[in-house]
Amino acid sequence: MNSKDGYQWTEKGGLTQGVPSIGLIQPPSNITEESTVYDVIIVGAGYTALTAARDATTSGLKVLLLEARDRIGGRSWSSNIGGYPFEMGGTWVNWGQAHVWREISRYNMRKELEISQEHSYGVNHFSLFTAAGKKTDLSHEEEDRIMISALHKFINVDGALGRKIMPFPHDETYKPDVLPIDRLTAADRLSQIEGELSPQEYGCLKGWLLLCSGSTLETMSFYEFLHLWALSGYSYEGCIEYLVKYKFRGGQSSFAIKFWNEALSTNRLSYNFNCPIASIKDSNNSVEVTSIDGRIYKGSRVISTIPLNVLSTIKFDPPIDPSKTRATNTGHLNQCVKVHAEVSNKDLRSWSSIDPSSKLLYAFGDGTTPAGNTHIVAFGANETHLDPEKDINATKKILTDLTDMNIERVVFHNWSSDPYAKGAWFFPGKEFVTSYLEALRARHGNVFFASSDWAVGWRSFIDGAIEEGTRAARDVLLDLRSGPRQY
Amino acid sequence: MNSKDGYQWTEKGGLTQGVPSIGLIQPPSNITEESTVYDVIIVGAGYTALTAARDATTSGLKVLLLEARDRIGGRSWSSNIGGYPFEMGGTWVNWGQAHVWREISRYNMRKELEISQEHSYGVNHFSLFTAAGKKTDLSHEEEDRIMISALHKFINVDGALGRKIMPFPHDETYKPDVLPIDRLTAADRLSQIEGELSPQEYGCLKGWLLLCSGSTLETMSFYEFLHLWALSGYSYEGCIEYLVKYKFRGGQSSFAIKFWNEALSTNRLSYNFNCPIASIKDSNNSVEVTSIDGRIYKGSRVISTIPLNVLSTIKFDPPIDPSKTRATNTGHLNQCVKVHAEVSNKDLRSWSSIDPSSKLLYAFGDGTTPAGNTHIVAFGANETHLDPEKDINATKKILTDLTDMNIERVVFHNWSSDPYAKGAWFFPGKEFVTSYLEALRARHGNVFFASSDWAVGWRSFIDGAIEEGTRAARDVLLDLRSGPRQY
Repeated sequence: MNSKDGYQWTEKGGLTQGVPSIGLIQPPSNITEESTVYDVIIVGAGYTALTAARDATTSGLKVLLLEARDRIGGRSWSSNIGGYPFEMGGTWVNWGQAHVWREISRYNMRKELEISQEHSYGVNHFSLFTAAGKKTDLSHEEEDRIMISALHKFINVDGALGRKIMPFPHDETYKPDVLPIDRLTAADRLSQIEGELSPQEYGCLKGWLLLCSGSTLETMSFYEFLHLWALSGYSYEGCIEYLVKYKFRGGQSSFAIKFWNEALSTNRLSYNFNCPIASIKDSNNSVEVTSIDGRIYKGSRVISTIPLNVLSTIKFDPPIDPSKTRATNTGHLNQCVKVHAEVSNKDLRSWSSIDPSSKLLYAFGDGTTPAGNTHIVAFGANETHLDPEKDINATKKILTDLTDMNIERVVFHNWSSDPYAKGAWFFPGKEFVTSYLEALRARHGNVFFASSDWAVGWRSFIDGAIEEGTRAARDVLLDLRSGPRQY
Repeated sequence: MNSKDGYQWTEKGGLTQGVPSIGLIQPPSNITEESTVYDVIIVGAGYTALTAARDATTSGLKVLLLEARDRIGGRSWSSNIGGYPFEMGGTWVNWGQAHVWREISRYNMRKELEISQEHSYGVNHFSLFTAAGKKTDLSHEEEDRIMISALHKFINVDGALGRKIMPFPHDETYKPDVLPIDRLTAADRLSQIEGELSPQEYGCLKGWLLLCSGSTLETMSFYEFLHLWALSGYSYEGCIEYLVKYKFRGGQSSFAIKFWNEALSTNRLSYNFNCPIASIKDSNNSVEVTSIDGRIYKGSRVISTIPLNVLSTIKFDPPIDPSKTRATNTGHLNQCVKVHAEVSNKDLRSWSSIDPSSKLLYAFGDGTTPAGNTHIVAFGANETHLDPEKDINATKKILTDLTDMNIERVVFHNWSSDPYAKGAWFFPGKEFVTSYLEALRARHGNVFFASSDWAVGWRSFIDGAIEEGTRAARDVLLDLRSGPRQY
């Protein structure tokens, strides 16, 4: 069945809203008693919420999950079309990402991964645009060489490619002299190495930075990029392996549903989808969560997994503290656009491109569909923002400007216009991380806040979401002082 | 208080058995009702057992843990002497090891790590012995260069340093052409590259291989070393970071006790220490575990975390299958000796040595004690095996032969003579992994087997132990078909 989320275009069907997903939950609610007071109400159904719901229910708590959408997964979900999953948001995972890998291992899904970019089929080259329309075709080995050279110049603030200044990426301020770096944007750092980059290096680097941040060079935090680099083992090879290489053969929703089913199997999970939240009122002994449609739900504790960019739309009583308010008013920058194209050009499987002046600045062959077609994935950032559904023909033209392709299908989710996301994965401006992350993690009375947006490690990744869901469930359990409750 | 495990020597006290540990459990039992039938009896108290006990109790199961020793931790525990932890077995952890890092993060211990080898104090060199008594002092940079050159020659069976033949270290037979490699010992592989290694390269490589395997070149599996290499990101730098760099400031027992306390807090954990097991009898509806002292304990299921090398001492009724029997009779090879020395030579903090002809073939400065002394850790393998307690003066002489040092204290645990370990961490001979691991993981009626010795990923590591404990608890929970039980 179709979720209301996402868009699909085909020649025959035209542009339609809503795509099929195994993450759709039907019926959307299992609530029978309106008056129940739950141990904990979890707001959201992304990986943070799913992890918290699973950990809380399996530990004996009575949980209500409220979700604005009709599906689980939040900013990570897949649409399975004709037996092939298109990843609408968060996609890639790696065994070096502790929280997500622990779950992949625990759900025995280790063997359900496949490789996105395979450089061994057909057109095996990389198209680099150093100016609009100025294209050079290079080998992937040349791509790697240029990218590594550029990234090393960009990142090397300490003569040790970041290892010296950020030796523990999960304890990132271990060396306090890393803190002033958060005053730099990527553009600031680029100005420090002005003249050192060749035009090709600049083009590759800009493409990579905007891919990572979904924003602009002038606004994105250099510090956050350094953190990502440190997490990835301080190397471009590591970045590729951690960020864009391994994905689920069955799609993200095949993973998310495992958490959901385990939580459900406890018979302690109540839920209501299509239920956006208006306000959260904490009266010390219990918390009332009021939905947009005016229903009131009661719990001893609340875990809000509402994303940073959406949090300011919720009314809190008592109001959240000034620091959290400033953080939610500031928000993060990532307005990444991700567009999938199924193209009949079988030889594009090993193609990739970077065109920093295009609205889809980074693209590569991501798989082969059951029809034998190539699946191309393309990303845009906020510098020249694209809303693909507003003009699907223009979107297709942007793709075919990158290289010749015969497009049979386009699939995407517009995260920027999505009221429950207001952007893609977390990527901050300068000074956000060092100013606000601690405040965002803090509890507010009986309300706990958890989101990948302020995770310690793989912030903005599925791994960070699971880290945060784990933390929140444990904090609530400890807070309720019962260990698991006796029923 | 002192555990009965471990040894300590000082000038004043001489050699004494038993050292203090916060992993000692007092009183050793909390059993009040002898007749209880538990949901699951867990045999052992290492990380596998601790993880299984925690996951099972927090999920609502009634658990009995039986342990032969007087302490938790199994082959990973620390003795805290004068405020300084000496790691008696498994020590190092890394954030790229998913299972252990998920727990470190969950228990909020991210900031409790410190760095073992620091190359910035005093005598900053590496002593390499290429023949008995033939010592050359090199810089650590030279050490790295020689080691990398030697390891690359040794590992490079596929022209891609192992990446091609074992691209998924957590799905190691993803490329079936990796399987024939398990017919090689390290010596077999060395004969394939005969003439390619300089004497210094050979010395470094032999030291590293015996450090990793605790066995001999003629018996250790090349395949298992390749797997370890793949897990470490296919690089020597990765090996250092994953295998010997980051440890707990408070010692391993400060971590193990977190699992224990969480399990205890559920009030569903019964336990009996000093309780070695004689037999396990499965009568379909329940399992009887009989201790050496003749007491019988009953459970619906049993999780045995007994190490591979000890499993053959337990009588199973009905007998375990022939494949498991062959595996337990074969056992693994690792007879590593690990000896700590507290030395008054402050300038040895950044010293290291490799002497393949010494009974302590790999040594390095591992920390600074509260007295300002240097803590040296040294390892021996099975080629020229050392039992330190049999002649402590000879042991001290072996240390001082490596470099001048004034020894004030020696601390160690003899894992080879320990009846509940019969060796150190798992390291197999050729053809063991491809022949027996699947069989070792299989359940036997109501008895489940879990041990780091046959983990999928970081086999033989703390990470692998937690992986296995997680798997076993989940398998038992699913098997009892209840999800968490309602009490």
